[in-house]
Amino acid sequence: MWTGGTITIVTSASTPPPAHSHRITAVRVTPVAFDDLPLLNSVGVHEPFALRSIVEVVTEGGVYGLGESYGDLPHLQRLERAAGRLVGCNVFDTNAIMRAVVTSLATDDGVGGHGMSGMVTGSATADRVFSPFEVAALDLQGKLLGVPVSDLLGGAVRDRVNYSAYLFYKWAGHPGHEDDEWGAALDPEGLVRQATKMIEEYKFSAIKLKGGVFAPEQEVEAVKALRAAFPDHPLRLDPNAAWTVETSIKVAEALDGIVEYLEDPAPGIDGMAAVARSAGMPLATNMAVVSFDHLPESFAKDAVQVILSDHHFWGGLRRSQLLAGICQTWGLRLSMHSNSHLGISLAAMTHLAAATPNLDYACDTHWPWKRADEDVIVDGVLSFVDGAVPVPTGPGLGIELDRDRLARLHEQYIECGLRNRDDTGYMRKFQPDFDNSIPRW
Amino acid sequence: MWTGGTITIVTSASTPPPAHSHRITAVRVTPVAFDDLPLLNSVGVHEPFALRSIVEVVTEGGVYGLGESYGDLPHLQRLERAAGRLVGCNVFDTNAIMRAVVTSLATDDGVGGHGMSGMVTGSATADRVFSPFEVAALDLQGKLLGVPVSDLLGGAVRDRVNYSAYLFYKWAGHPGHEDDEWGAALDPEGLVRQATKMIEEYKFSAIKLKGGVFAPEQEVEAVKALRAAFPDHPLRLDPNAAWTVETSIKVAEALDGIVEYLEDPAPGIDGMAAVARSAGMPLATNMAVVSFDHLPESFAKDAVQVILSDHHFWGGLRRSQLLAGICQTWGLRLSMHSNSHLGISLAAMTHLAAATPNLDYACDTHWPWKRADEDVIVDGVLSFVDGAVPVPTGPGLGIELDRDRLARLHEQYIECGLRNRDDTGYMRKFQPDFDNSIPRW
Ligand SMILES: [Mg+2]
Ligand SMILES: [Mg+2]
Repeated sequence: MWTGGTITIVTSASTPPPAHSHRITAVRVTPVAFDDLPLLNSVGVHEPFALRSIVEVVTEGGVYGLGESYGDLPHLQRLERAAGRLVGCNVFDTNAIMRAVVTSLATDDGVGGHGMSGMVTGSATADRVFSPFEVAALDLQGKLLGVPVSDLLGGAVRDRVNYSAYLFYKWAGHPGHEDDEWGAALDPEGLVRQATKMIEEYKFSAIKLKGGVFAPEQEVEAVKALRAAFPDHPLRLDPNAAWTVETSIKVAEALDGIVEYLEDPAPGIDGMAAVARSAGMPLATNMAVVSFDHLPESFAKDAVQVILSDHHFWGGLRRSQLLAGICQTWGLRLSMHSNSHLGISLAAMTHLAAATPNLDYACDTHWPWKRADEDVIVDGVLSFVDGAVPVPTGPGLGIELDRDRLARLHEQYIECGLRNRDDTGYMRKFQPDFDNSIPRW
Repeated sequence: MWTGGTITIVTSASTPPPAHSHRITAVRVTPVAFDDLPLLNSVGVHEPFALRSIVEVVTEGGVYGLGESYGDLPHLQRLERAAGRLVGCNVFDTNAIMRAVVTSLATDDGVGGHGMSGMVTGSATADRVFSPFEVAALDLQGKLLGVPVSDLLGGAVRDRVNYSAYLFYKWAGHPGHEDDEWGAALDPEGLVRQATKMIEEYKFSAIKLKGGVFAPEQEVEAVKALRAAFPDHPLRLDPNAAWTVETSIKVAEALDGIVEYLEDPAPGIDGMAAVARSAGMPLATNMAVVSFDHLPESFAKDAVQVILSDHHFWGGLRRSQLLAGICQTWGLRLSMHSNSHLGISLAAMTHLAAATPNLDYACDTHWPWKRADEDVIVDGVLSFVDGAVPVPTGPGLGIELDRDRLARLHEQYIECGLRNRDDTGYMRKFQPDFDNSIPRW
């Protein structure tokens, strides 16, 4: 039985392959730095610049694909070592790209350079190094084929991806500089003011507060102030494992019915499991469970109920889809973690989120903390509409590299002198006795 | 730092999309029947014809993709109902194809028609119905793009896929017909003769015996005879859950050090877990764990150590990759299950196996039991070299439909009168008191 209209079958089973070769002829890794604001967290405060690595992968025909990753020096060096092994690979053969990455890491000690300032430990080095090359390969595949990356991932199930308002306690400005446009947020009033400004501008419909900065009671008060000011916005609190199990259980009681999930209250799988046994809300993590190796133990102990996926450390977009499928199979929920990032990462996150049926929450993004005029891509494709990013529909990631902007941010990298993220070191310039021990309360 | 040679970057980020549309304009589901031999198993004996459904998915430009699935009537009817909802879908949007399948099953009772004669129960109906459409969509994507399906799955990690010699106890021929070219195999000597003929022809380097036909002691003797005749071939025995836990444990002791895995000795996750606690070898399954729903319980109980993947009931090639990723994450091994099939399924299995890094054993196939002149594809692409199938390198699955052959096997379907696989009913024509209870020994 034929279903459908009149049918003409072409006699040949195949159309001619694209004229361009699929072989990688060149790879470039460019470190960049962009302005960052004094955002506070459990291990210190953001430095004046955030570091990223920009990856370009080029085929014989001169078509390029883009990836973005952490900018810390050991990671940058790993990316460069891996890059040297990718020339000659087929851009469709991401298995071969992974093998090349693994080979390049054969003598690596795996220490340092993840660029997350102690807030993601234990993630798999190969997955972190592979990620930007995989994203670039998928961008390239899409460009060669004329289809968006979301199609290569099985098709967009939504045409826009919701992000959350990511609030931070912060200083008014970097010490020695003028106040920035956001001003200080060091108490509930300051955070409500920050949320109001951010939500006015972006129309986010969910709110996340980065905690672990002040005593838990103060942060509970801040969340309650946000609840009063935004009665309909789902709320989350993330102290980055700054609390003991006992403190976490107390906070969970205080915020029961107020937050949609509690993020990394206590350190480790066992710590999270202990909190989970008492907490009334799901626990989310981007710290206790950050690689495939952690999943069996974590699931056996029911340590977390929400995984905050992040393609930068889960090994790219397809391995993040594997993670999503695992979460669906075991009944865990899924949301998305963010570090300070540029447009390539936002585009990649948006394609991945669009093609992930079981995405249960608005994704995190640091986007509002980035200067609008600083990026490495051409403006215009990525925008926020009602707190969501419409999924780019052009080939690949749908974005284009702006080489002048890339050069400018690379120049800024050279000049700023930062080579590794060090929130604690920067904090101690101003508070020499700053205690970064975890858990602290 | 640029790695690689001279670089020319094209100014536009994208090449023009392919001229053909990606929209599905027609879908055809054609039931076919092909000759089958009197192969014995725990629930009876193969009938003279095996049934399959052939799926064609066509785009506006007249390019087609192929899928193959079970041919039992309820399944065929489900495929046809789903087919009616696929027109208009983008062939890249397999998420939309799955939604259409799920919608088409909204009023389905999920009973019957899996085409595996009671040997796979509990597999997810949506995954079974989705599978041939997903394979056809990937075939089409590859043809539209000029890349093999293995590339769409992340790249072939091997250029040939090993299959095993799949031995069956069998009658000399169908009752009332002449003996077939294989003759009888009803004792160890007959099986060794069968193995010798099959391995001479195909050069398989692993041997699987379908058991559950005679008393376990006799089947143990058969395996030992195969070990003596083929000292270097890994061996497997699959009684299709015909044994109690106690019997299974005894057989496991008798075959310790002789088989590489024991396949579905006892029924159910709990039965397999009980056997696994004693058995010296890994246990494999395509009966106890046949859908994503079964994985958490099975893993928690360590019921099986090898999953026999099968894209026909695990929801297509990409969901089989999800299964493979899950096996890798939890440390399970992976092999591949087979039912009687034609060339489309062999091509799909081969692409999938090629792109699966953690495939640990030679895959099963019923291929040698199929008449060489019966298929629905054009000969020439699929062949066995030293027991392995070289991975097709043409666009998509790399195969072409032979419409004359399709018409002939469809005619055979019409004429043979079989509409559902019924190994037990066929057996009872000749042995009215045949006992198909499971477990039996
Ligand atoms: Mg976090
Ligand atoms: Mg089996």
